[in-house]
Amino acid sequence: MEFEVRFLPEGKRVSVPAGSTVMFAALRAGVDLANICGGKGFCGKCLVEVLEGKVPPPTEQEKRRVSEEKIKKGYRLACQLIVQDDIVVQVPDQSRVGRQRLVIMGKEPPVRLNPNVKKVYAEVMPPSLQDPKGDDLRIAKVLASMGFDSVLIDYEIVRGMPKILREGGWKVTFTMLDNREVVNVQPGDRTKELYGVAVDIGTTKLAVFIVDLMDGGIIFADGMMNPQIRYGEDVISRIGYASQSDENLKEAQKAIIDGINSLIERGLKETGIKEEDLYELVAVGNTAMHHLFLGLHVKSLGFSPYPPVVGRAYNLKARDLGVKINPAGNVHMLPNVAGFVGADAIADILASRIHDREKLTLLMDVGTNTEVILGCKDGLWSCSTASGPAFEGAHIKCGMRAATGAVEKVKIKEDFEVEYTTIDGERARGICGSGIIDAVAEMLRTGVVDMSGKIVLQGHRRVRDGADGREFVLVFKEDTASGKEDIVITQEDIREVQKAKAAMYAGYMTLMRKSGFKREELSEIIIAGAFGNYIDPENARIIGMIPELPISKVSFLGNTAGSGARMCLKSTEIRKEAEDVAKAIKYVELAAEPIFEEEYVNAMYMPNSKLEDFPEVVANVKAPRVVKRYVRR
Amino acid sequence: MEFEVRFLPEGKRVSVPAGSTVMFAALRAGVDLANICGGKGFCGKCLVEVLEGKVPPPTEQEKRRVSEEKIKKGYRLACQLIVQDDIVVQVPDQSRVGRQRLVIMGKEPPVRLNPNVKKVYAEVMPPSLQDPKGDDLRIAKVLASMGFDSVLIDYEIVRGMPKILREGGWKVTFTMLDNREVVNVQPGDRTKELYGVAVDIGTTKLAVFIVDLMDGGIIFADGMMNPQIRYGEDVISRIGYASQSDENLKEAQKAIIDGINSLIERGLKETGIKEEDLYELVAVGNTAMHHLFLGLHVKSLGFSPYPPVVGRAYNLKARDLGVKINPAGNVHMLPNVAGFVGADAIADILASRIHDREKLTLLMDVGTNTEVILGCKDGLWSCSTASGPAFEGAHIKCGMRAATGAVEKVKIKEDFEVEYTTIDGERARGICGSGIIDAVAEMLRTGVVDMSGKIVLQGHRRVRDGADGREFVLVFKEDTASGKEDIVITQEDIREVQKAKAAMYAGYMTLMRKSGFKREELSEIIIAGAFGNYIDPENARIIGMIPELPISKVSFLGNTAGSGARMCLKSTEIRKEAEDVAKAIKYVELAAEPIFEEEYVNAMYMPNSKLEDFPEVVANVKAPRVVKRYVRR
Repeated sequence: MEFEVRFLPEGKRVSVPAGSTVMFAALRAGVDLANICGGKGFCGKCLVEVLEGKVPPPTEQEKRRVSEEKIKKGYRLACQLIVQDDIVVQVPDQSRVGRQRLVIMGKEPPVRLNPNVKKVYAEVMPPSLQDPKGDDLRIAKVLASMGFDSVLIDYEIVRGMPKILREGGWKVTFTMLDNREVVNVQPGDRTKELYGVAVDIGTTKLAVFIVDLMDGGIIFADGMMNPQIRYGEDVISRIGYASQSDENLKEAQKAIIDGINSLIERGLKETGIKEEDLYELVAVGNTAMHHLFLGLHVKSLGFSPYPPVVGRAYNLKARDLGVKINPAGNVHMLPNVAGFVGADAIADILASRIHDREKLTLLMDVGTNTEVILGCKDGLWSCSTASGPAFEGAHIKCGMRAATGAVEKVKIKEDFEVEYTTIDGERARGICGSGIIDAVAEMLRTGVVDMSGKIVLQGHRRVRDGADGREFVLVFKEDTASGKEDIVITQEDIREVQKAKAAMYAGYMTLMRKSGFKREELSEIIIAGAFGNYIDPENARIIGMIPELPISKVSFLGNTAGSGARMCLKSTEIRKEAEDVAKAIKYVELAAEPIFEEEYVNAMYMPNSKLEDFPEVVANVKAPRVVKRYVRR
Repeated sequence: MEFEVRFLPEGKRVSVPAGSTVMFAALRAGVDLANICGGKGFCGKCLVEVLEGKVPPPTEQEKRRVSEEKIKKGYRLACQLIVQDDIVVQVPDQSRVGRQRLVIMGKEPPVRLNPNVKKVYAEVMPPSLQDPKGDDLRIAKVLASMGFDSVLIDYEIVRGMPKILREGGWKVTFTMLDNREVVNVQPGDRTKELYGVAVDIGTTKLAVFIVDLMDGGIIFADGMMNPQIRYGEDVISRIGYASQSDENLKEAQKAIIDGINSLIERGLKETGIKEEDLYELVAVGNTAMHHLFLGLHVKSLGFSPYPPVVGRAYNLKARDLGVKINPAGNVHMLPNVAGFVGADAIADILASRIHDREKLTLLMDVGTNTEVILGCKDGLWSCSTASGPAFEGAHIKCGMRAATGAVEKVKIKEDFEVEYTTIDGERARGICGSGIIDAVAEMLRTGVVDMSGKIVLQGHRRVRDGADGREFVLVFKEDTASGKEDIVITQEDIREVQKAKAAMYAGYMTLMRKSGFKREELSEIIIAGAFGNYIDPENARIIGMIPELPISKVSFLGNTAGSGARMCLKSTEIRKEAEDVAKAIKYVELAAEPIFEEEYVNAMYMPNSKLEDFPEVVANVKAPRVVKRYVRR
């Protein structure tokens, strides 16, 4: 039996089998509906209003995420609502995603929930003339009976505590940090309101997740550009800026914290959660972002051997940092491995479980900096390469960020004519990271360039000498949004891509050679990072950014840094694991490594000057082989 | 052999045996010279300038407390400088005490120095390409080798740490709190600069001590009126004020903290110590002062059964409280026993060692509130009585604080004429606490009043009916400073003294009866509290404020609350002892105690309606016995 679901205001109609969810119907109908938690009923984002038709009673998840009042008015969660009649639903604006390329979600393995904060409801014995001892002693007593020994009470909390105890008739909810410290006292039973924040501080993007620590669900997720970007596009320039003066450092820190706070605020507003009920914030980032978030002096990160200030996991009071959670709450920073392999790499490992794997795996967290991790349960090796901002569209003549009108997919035909798609299908405005990789791979495949990256195609309308040297026209101006200038790939653009991919591949090869693993042992490649999601793995392999493995062995996990942060928020065991990984992982400083130098030069060729390592690519590309000696700048 | 010491600018000369100190000479000559640490060379307050004569080289203590430059100019410490020639010394103004009655010192038993903060000098291994791990890991490693395991680094410190490590060439001094947390990193060897602050927060007075935690010496001591006094004279009115609103509470807290900070600031200025080198502040006070200092809600202290908010010892970060010591430093509050027996009583016990004593001892810490403690090593009992502000000169017609011109000692002769002394020997302005006790005791002894406290003397020029009823003229107006009004003791003044002393004695008797100790076991009486020092024990016994024991068994220990705070600052073992005492001590809430009621009524008589308990007093006073039934207010 099928029923019809009609979505308003679009008026789209779709038939689905009885027992389907409204979310399923929306997907089938192509209706834009938020789906942050993947249909688990956690995030509460897919709120719809049922206008007509019979519906089953609300599920437990709906009762939890939707107010009683709203449910009465017909509001339901599309992912929970089962279709058992012809129905008409209205999709409110706030339940729509729109098209955005700030990918902040990443794959996350299941985690046994055991957060560092817990809530317990307790009835405290009120004082009497026979027993007039201090409130703190009464609390210590009742908490001891529940297994919390020698508890401390945070100063922020202790001040107003007597009032709350009395207002609550001595029946209160305690929030315990680390099973030891009382970080909130609330009247009555408030045990269900226990939330935390996971933060991924990328060089370019910030992502904030609010997690329900009673069930582990993500109930809010949002991202924004890292406001610190005004102090420099890459890590090195940020370090330079922040090292100049204490004021600069403070400014740079404030930029990140303000950004995170604004996202948290948005989350609180949308979810109706109270700031006091956010008890922990777990943050990851590369070492520079980690340090700038904490306001640590970063000068040492700018000079060899680039030691971090803080390598171990670090905890501090929320009020000391000024993040918008309960001021008595805890901020937990994952450990850093080295100056350029930070807490985000640890988070990547936790989320991808490389350290548990039987078989050798390569993980690349592609971003402005790319962290390269090679290993399995027998050992982990790491390094960091400055892949540069090329993939973010910077330093590319017609480069742009992944936004409306960016060329994101490119195909070059036998006749060297070009097929492409743009984000949102709008007229082309420029080319973004995935587009440039596609373009270069296609130029290599069709022989527009030779293996050294030189544009060798002659006598075609798309190849010419431009103001910046030789160039290939991707989109002629009549097809662009502006209508004024052609979108081109210059010789210099190709060099930028070569440098970026060479650094990544050379990083991998250096780890391979230093670690003693054998190349034939490599059985899987994981591409992480928000940007990674958009890379065509075939093209990444053609240009030699990643080693040649069957495409089925390449997987994309998205923003695993954020996933690792959430896992640590949800589980103290995972936090322990993070510290173990940080202790065990070996770090290779590439700046001091002759092997890297050598592999970098090899990898400037496309796919590589060691052609034998890329037999399948070599068999399929038309690019002429050339002999050319690159010297690394 | 004797030498002559001449003191300028007074020009006083004195001969002392060779080998005497200049301090000894000053005492003999009656020259006003500060002597805070009792001649140990700790406080550096007795600085004098040697103008003529040969002197021995400076002692270690002098080198420590007097700058090299000053020593070259001839400045020396009078308590350290041995006379071995005729010498002339100049006493600078700042080395003079002047006459002040803010007694802040108290007896302090010796304590094995083992403070909660320690400094260690360490050479940290600098990072290298082979070993580029985090600064925190290097520090953890070197500190682990010195016995400090799994150290934490305070957030305040970690931020600037990399700079200091590098500026100090990786040779630095760490300050460890609780053997666990790094609360300062300083370049070079700074192990000698380790200081702490002990604070006694009295209802009326604040006392601040800066202690050198390398040798335990007091190097600065100063007091002031508690600025909170503007919100009420006694504890009850302060609680009332602070309970009205959160703003009031904040104001009341700020008043104390500002007062303490101003004293600390004065200390830093005088001693040249840096704020960052004050690492701990240990504070005591009665429960209300303790709570108001921390800004805790005090409403519950105003209602039976008066439970404290915090009974246990409490630690918090200096920056959270806003006291002027190293912001990463620790504030330690001694435990409170009950709503009206606070941390100051614990400090009294620690300093007087009652809990160690073989024989039963009574301790009274006399102040606006009087804490009464009875016990020995077999057990401790405590209560608190509102002795009221009578002893501070308030609620007494001609009462005044202990300041210049206050009548402080009174003798009434057989002919009822009066001999008295005033503070500073100036013409009388009023009568202070010790003067009023003397006066009432003398009136009782000579029969001016009967045992019920009624003025019964008739037909003498000093006894008359005044505006406020019957009164006794202590000083006729022609002898007063103003020359305008007689200084009198009214019938009502005598009642005030009776009420205060009755409460104290009844408190003692209640403890005696509740504890099961026997009265004949009582072998010693200790009077503590700044005011206590000025009480004539004989007169206190005559009016029945204290039980009748030989005068040799009554001792005065001064401000033992301050002493106990210093002891806890100097020793973590003593802190542990404080917690043990707080756990072991029994508290009797007098408001709920019929025994107290009964004993209070008995004690309104002078010395007491149970005359058999004061045989010696009864034998010596001329006051008529009367039968009168008092009913407690």
